[in-house]
Amino acid sequence: MRAIKIAFHGGVEGLEVAEVERPEAVGDRVRVRVRAAALNRADLLQRRGAYPAPPGFPADIPGLEFAGEVESAGADARRWRPGARVYGITGGGAQAEYVVVPENALAEIPANLGWEEAAAVPEAFITAHDALFTQGNLAMGERVIVHAAGSGVGLAAVQLARAAGAQTLGTARRTADKLERARAYGLDEMCVVKDDPRAFADAAKAWTNGAGVDVILDLVGASYLAANLDALAPRGRLLLVGTLAGRSAPLDFRQVMGKRLRLTGTVLRTRSAEEKARATRLFAAHVSPLLARGALRPVIDSVFDLRDIRAAHERLESNETFGKIVLQVTG
Amino acid sequence: MRAIKIAFHGGVEGLEVAEVERPEAVGDRVRVRVRAAALNRADLLQRRGAYPAPPGFPADIPGLEFAGEVESAGADARRWRPGARVYGITGGGAQAEYVVVPENALAEIPANLGWEEAAAVPEAFITAHDALFTQGNLAMGERVIVHAAGSGVGLAAVQLARAAGAQTLGTARRTADKLERARAYGLDEMCVVKDDPRAFADAAKAWTNGAGVDVILDLVGASYLAANLDALAPRGRLLLVGTLAGRSAPLDFRQVMGKRLRLTGTVLRTRSAEEKARATRLFAAHVSPLLARGALRPVIDSVFDLRDIRAAHERLESNETFGKIVLQVTG
Repeated sequence: MRAIKIAFHGGVEGLEVAEVERPEAVGDRVRVRVRAAALNRADLLQRRGAYPAPPGFPADIPGLEFAGEVESAGADARRWRPGARVYGITGGGAQAEYVVVPENALAEIPANLGWEEAAAVPEAFITAHDALFTQGNLAMGERVIVHAAGSGVGLAAVQLARAAGAQTLGTARRTADKLERARAYGLDEMCVVKDDPRAFADAAKAWTNGAGVDVILDLVGASYLAANLDALAPRGRLLLVGTLAGRSAPLDFRQVMGKRLRLTGTVLRTRSAEEKARATRLFAAHVSPLLARGALRPVIDSVFDLRDIRAAHERLESNETFGKIVLQVTG
Repeated sequence: MRAIKIAFHGGVEGLEVAEVERPEAVGDRVRVRVRAAALNRADLLQRRGAYPAPPGFPADIPGLEFAGEVESAGADARRWRPGARVYGITGGGAQAEYVVVPENALAEIPANLGWEEAAAVPEAFITAHDALFTQGNLAMGERVIVHAAGSGVGLAAVQLARAAGAQTLGTARRTADKLERARAYGLDEMCVVKDDPRAFADAAKAWTNGAGVDVILDLVGASYLAANLDALAPRGRLLLVGTLAGRSAPLDFRQVMGKRLRLTGTVLRTRSAEEKARATRLFAAHVSPLLARGALRPVIDSVFDLRDIRAAHERLESNETFGKIVLQVTG
């Protein structure tokens, strides 16, 4: 089968479309014919050699999410019939014509979503749903800061928070463009941070009449830590998502103790199959129905053919994307 | 009534026994005739002027916990009859002949506990129970590090963890004496940290065959942060309890994200009456029954008469205590 392959670590020139062996579905596993897959920032890190695939996943075929049709199944799999339209996340290997995953790592695609739309959903919406609700216990009426609100996860978080009766303040690092566009997805307030993270802490205080926000979904990391703690209300929850670089920032114990804050690190990729299955089950139960009725919408920045993978990486590296970059895999 | 009064901030010479006005119980409040109260490190900070009482509590009468008899009640209070033996926590004012608290801030003292034993219970056991279970979701079979295992909260945590089917590794800063004594309360493993926190991280790794521990109850704070993160297993929970000094330490995002750790700051004193009521209700339901049957035991370091408050503070400041310092208030 054809697959994206990382021939060597470094720049985009290490990426190629290669013929590789098709994986077999045994046990409770299902083989999905991939119609479309999406890119993630983790792919960039993996290409550079900074984020190896977890054990049990192809080391040199990237791809954390996909949409496609069930093609065959192992003897112990019983949930899906061939031809079922499914989407899901995996630890790697999804940017290929076929991917093999446990049957409980799949959810059914709502009928109103095409392949490319469907491929733009799983990682962003599962990550945001798991972070905001399963880890962060977001409740209606609460207020949320969504950093990098124009990213795939950010736009999913803005929509999910709104759908659940919460309000959002979105941030962007440089310009207001993406935030203006995010308003169409329900963003309530916005802040361009530029060089001083105190800007969003001040904006959050003004927005909440000094009370602070209940939840922060952070895709930035160390440089925002102090301002994040400052922006939180008592009993606030800080969700550290996807800041994979191994950086460090001073933690102010007075704030953490005095406001009784909770900080949670959360990554999907390294989770056990059982935990991914749980996150996927909750996604299928709580998120797919809202996609089906149009209350949540996948956001596609651009679509590339599989053979244009280098251009797709360059687009993601530009930091100019709004929503997801999707790869067409099979027609 | 007689009460401990902080006449001026600073050393123990600012402490005196004074005649003050007796508080009235109105609404849902209950007046308790205090038989015994206990000391906490927060009292030392309050005496020095570094930890003012929260709004609504006496500014100059310390005392966060007490045991005594219900003496009178407001018109809306209906849970307790005069003479009921009760214990509980409050935001201040308990080191006095009478204290007034909401009726749902009280729990019934098991018949087998005397006044001094009962006074040694509430703050330590409510803090440890709330931290380990309500915040930390400690489950049977898990492994816990309890820092300062010879302290009041530490000894409560060791006993609670053991009672719930978990195992504990206790640490002390200087010598093994307190840890040896803690074995009688169920401590499984021990580590004297001395000057290098890596000592307990290494001990934890050895104890768990490299896996790391599930929960850490931290009473130390900034200087232990890096080693705490290192000692935790994936999905581990770090509970920051009672490190009130406003200090800072570098937070390693790689560890927090990679292991998906959760850090929670938790303090009882500043909580709302509703939250204290909830913690007290869970304590009454889950902890008092085990005290009643002797599966949990209050640990008393020493007992002082109210008029020896200065000596009691000096004893607490010595860092040589094992368990709680109790004040006899009324005979």
